[in-house]
Amino acid sequence: MKSLTKYLTFNIPSKMAFQNITPQVDDAVRASGVQEGLVLVNAMHITASVFINDDEPGLHEDYKRWLEQLAPYDPSPQRYHHNRTGEDNGDAHHKREIFGREVVVAITAGKLDFGRWEQIFYGEFDGKRAKKVLVKIIGE
Amino acid sequence: MKSLTKYLTFNIPSKMAFQNITPQVDDAVRASGVQEGLVLVNAMHITASVFINDDEPGLHEDYKRWLEQLAPYDPSPQRYHHNRTGEDNGDAHHKREIFGREVVVAITAGKLDFGRWEQIFYGEFDGKRAKKVLVKIIGE
Amino acid sequence: MKSLTKYLTFNIPSKMAFQNITPQVDDAVRASGVQEGLVLVNAMHITASVFINDDEPGLHEDYKRWLEQLAPYDPSPQRYHHNRTGEDNGDAHHKREIFGREVVVAITAGKLDFGRWEQIFYGEFDGKRAKKVLVKIIGE
Repeated sequence: MKSLTKYLTFNIPSKMAFQNITPQVDDAVRASGVQEGLVLVNAMHITASVFINDDEPGLHEDYKRWLEQLAPYDPSPQRYHHNRTGEDNGDAHHKREIFGREVVVAITAGKLDFGRWEQIFYGEFDGKRAKKVLVKIIGE
Repeated sequence: MKSLTKYLTFNIPSKMAFQNITPQVDDAVRASGVQEGLVLVNAMHITASVFINDDEPGLHEDYKRWLEQLAPYDPSPQRYHHNRTGEDNGDAHHKREIFGREVVVAITAGKLDFGRWEQIFYGEFDGKRAKKVLVKIIGE
Repeated sequence: MKSLTKYLTFNIPSKMAFQNITPQVDDAVRASGVQEGLVLVNAMHITASVFINDDEPGLHEDYKRWLEQLAPYDPSPQRYHHNRTGEDNGDAHHKREIFGREVVVAITAGKLDFGRWEQIFYGEFDGKRAKKVLVKIIGE
């Protein structure tokens, strides 16, 4: 069994944004030499997501508006008790639960085994600081 | 390490529906000969989900009604900017984020290691056309 | 390839609660002897979740309130057709879809490869009875 571990760092200048990280994951798959296996890609922070969808700016605007409706930013500790800790990111912990922590993708014949429109995104919900994503590959 | 890759195709006649695909995944696990390992099952389209829950028609009706409340179908580009692209499936991209893209299931002693009521479903949110699901098995 | 399968049982005294199960998963990883690999942790019941977030009581209160808004407990079969079966847990099947069924975590150098605040939780949405979680480890 072969394996590869890679840590990616992102410093998103806004509070919420989606960044296409497919090229970095592609590179890791190629570097691993794995022909048949799985790659796990996960946020290492609990106010961020990794998810797969379309690289379409209109859709990303829709996602942001929708997440803001489902879990609005509100620094007060009335809406989010979490903010009693002195944090103001209670909303980000909720948005992350909608979009999830991780994706697992098949590697077939040495490549990400993707449908035509599948792209991997880092979803940031509490940005303006350096945060990490883990890429873990196992296979043969 | 053994591996097996299988592509399933579904052509759901309605816009939204849930189809039990456990038998097809079971078949793939048996064909792989893997005794101990993992199976990844994922939608290869970004307006569909693979998820695990109960095979109970009343629950499936509830899920459809609930998803329609959370992300209503609306072909206009006012609600979903994504529909400015000429598509009318902005809602489906949102519903898929609630139900997720994939499941990973343990294989133990050559079988899906499931709780009593666990069944694997293909969740279609933008049907009436052929769409694919990937089954990837690794193990020994 | 090495593998390990472990079943954990939880009997949560309330309907909804989040329990930190990181120590039990840590123990399984150590017992497996796997240095590089993946661990899958999933609920074996369809009214429960396994997820990763912060071990902060205020946040957990927020999550409970939010899930209750998104999918309120209601034993009547009017809101949840699922409850026509005689069950009263239609809401729990919905809450579980928001928080997901499973997590997959990397094992690096023999340990859970976690960001600073990542902790694994069992999320119970229909408690007061014994329910199981599966831990499956593969790697080398």
